[in-house]
Parts: sequence; structure tokens; C-alpha cells
Amino acid sequence: MIPMWMSELSQRSGLPVATIKFYLREGMLPPGTATGATRAHYDETHLRRLRLIRALVVVAALRLEDVRTILAAVDDESLTLHEVVGAAHTRLSATDASSPASSEARARVDALVRRKRWRLATDSPHREALAKGLDALSSLDQPVSDDLLDEYAAAMGPIARREVGSVVGEAPATATERAVVGTVLLEPVLLTIRRMAHEHVSAGRLGRKS
Amino acid sequence: MIPMWMSELSQRSGLPVATIKFYLREGMLPPGTATGATRAHYDETHLRRLRLIRALVVVAALRLEDVRTILAAVDDESLTLHEVVGAAHTRLSATDASSPASSEARARVDALVRRKRWRLATDSPHREALAKGLDALSSLDQPVSDDLLDEYAAAMGPIARREVGSVVGEAPATATERAVVGTVLLEPVLLTIRRMAHEHVSAGRLGRKS
Repeated sequence: MIPMWMSELSQRSGLPVATIKFYLREGMLPPGTATGATRAHYDETHLRRLRLIRALVVVAALRLEDVRTILAAVDDESLTLHEVVGAAHTRLSATDASSPASSEARARVDALVRRKRWRLATDSPHREALAKGLDALSSLDQPVSDDLLDEYAAAMGPIARREVGSVVGEAPATATERAVVGTVLLEPVLLTIRRMAHEHVSAGRLGRKS
Repeated sequence: MIPMWMSELSQRSGLPVATIKFYLREGMLPPGTATGATRAHYDETHLRRLRLIRALVVVAALRLEDVRTILAAVDDESLTLHEVVGAAHTRLSATDASSPASSEARARVDALVRRKRWRLATDSPHREALAKGLDALSSLDQPVSDDLLDEYAAAMGPIARREVGSVVGEAPATATERAVVGTVLLEPVLLTIRRMAHEHVSAGRLGRKS
């Protein structure tokens, strides 16, 4: 690999030097190879890591502490791919334990998982996150029907199979990063397309003040 | 409506009095009816507004400034439903103008919109948001294929029609709030179901360390 100085790393990643130094201090970016008392050089792996951080911060709009947790999982070689993706999702679905979901909402989530025959860990954080979402919508008199949940689940099943399928068989060196990118960074892409579809549908139906 | 004191409002909304007073100062919650120099009472509309704020902050994990913008749109009676939803989505899809998307990614987004025959404003912020998402994934050597975009679009079309359809015909008083809730608060529900589907699929396929 051709070594890069900090200035080139900054230019190619599109990030200011001060930002890169911050990520170095935080341990989110591995140190470069020292070439003197105050200088170091970097390589493509550093550039790649910076692009990943930038995408998680800017495109996925994650908080820095979530990015840190996700990167730690990517770097932990003792984890399986499934565990890395799980760690990333767990972080994103983490909810405030001080206000638990209602038992009714939890029962509806359990019923959905059974209907779909999904193999889901009993302590999967998605269960509680979904239950809390259902509670929030109910508290606003806009309960989510089981029909809509089933429609979401029916739509997401094939999409998840396709997304996960694209990761299997990749070179191990980048497989974990790919898995995280493919799950976390595709979320805003999917949501944006949903917003586009909403704009299209509502342009025709809600254009008049009701 | 039966009036409530601040203490009851706090208890029924599950929010501390200090938090409610903060929302009052910020203008996110309309003032109550003054019943003396330092006391006021509140009604169900206040409780409802607090539940909406709480859901946007806790469940949708929005930043306070985004919540403020969305509430301002809900309260603006000069806007059509379509405009209110548009304002909410615009805020969520807003991207940093200092690093524009590539012309190649923009062209791919335009092509998607044409393929789907979507009526989308030429200045819709979703176009730029999606193009930036495509750029980010490309910069990580994980380009999103047109096939996957089409699959997302095919899945989101019927879902958007159903979601928007549930809003049409509602009582005008709550129609705008319903539209915002139905678009913004259903996003985390949909994403959580996608994460569940991922956990299920990857449990079977990625469980071994590659």
C-alpha cells in the first residue's frame, strides 16, 4: 500500500485534520505508522475506516457513542458476523429501561414473531423497541393494526434475505464491515425511498387542506 | 373537558414537571388557562401534545430542533396536509449542503423516480438524501444496485398507499397530527421489524465466524 500523510488522508476522506485527530484520540481510527517524533503515515485501511465513520455519522445520523460501539464490534475478532450485526442493531434498538413497554404491546410483538416463525433471541432488544413503538402510537390514539404489522413483516422478509445474502461469501477481512454497512447504512436508503413513495401518494390525495 | 393541574399533567404524561415547563417555555406546548398569578390549568389537548412530543423524542429519537419544526408545521393552519407531511419529511431528509451528492448518484435517483413514475417535487429533499446515501455506500465499495432500489421501491409503494390512505377522511382537527404520526412514528416501527427479519435470517446464515 502507498503511505499517505495526514494532509492527503484529510483530502481524500473529505474530513478536516482536526476531526481525524479527534477520531484518533477516541480510538475510533487506529494509529498510523510513526515516522518520527511527531509524524505518522497512514494507508488505505485508514481511509476506508474514515469513510465508514463519516457515513455512519452523516448519512445514518448516528450519535458518536453509537458509532463507537459499532466500530468496537467490527474490530472484535472474537465475534461472529451474526454477533457483530446483532451488536450494531442492539445499540440502535436500545431503549430506556426506566419506562418499560406495556405487557399488552409485548404480547402483540410475541404473537407477530410466532406468526412469522422468526427465530429471535428471547432477550432481543428489537422486541422491547417494537413494543414501545406500539405503545407510543396507541397513546396517540393511532394504534398500529396487526394487519399493518403483518404487511411490514411480509415486505421486510424478502428484503432482509436479499441484504443478508449479499454478505455471505465475501472475503472475511471485510465481511463484518460489509454486514454492518449493509444493515445500518441501508436503513436511511430504505426510509428515504419510503418518504418518496409517501410524497408521491400524498401529492394526489392530501393536496387539499382538509 | 376536565381541567388538570400541572401535577396531574405530569403524572398522566409520564414526564417530569421540569420537562413540561421547558416545553412551555420553548413554545412547543401551548400555555394553560391562567387561574391565578402563578397557577394554570391544562386539558386533554395538552396531554395529547405531550404524548406526541414524547413519542417524537423517545421513540423516533428526533433531535429537539426537528421536533420543534414538525410541531410548528402541525400548528400552521395555512398548510395543507400534504404540506405538513412534506415539512416533517423535509426536516428529516435535510442534508448538509456543503457536501453535495455526485451527479452520477443524482442521475440514478432521477432514473428511479422516472421508472416508478413518481410525482416528486424537483426540489424534494429526498432526492439529495437518497443520492448521498448511494454515494456513501459506493465510497465503501458496497454500491447499491438498481435492482435493490427497485425492490425497496416496490415494497414501499403499497405500504405508503396504505399508510396515507388511513389518514384521508379523518376529522380535520387531528388529521395533520395523524399524518405526522403515521409517517414519522411508523418509521421506527418499520425499521425495527426489518431488524427482526435480519436477526432471523442471519441467525441461520451468519452464525459461524467467517
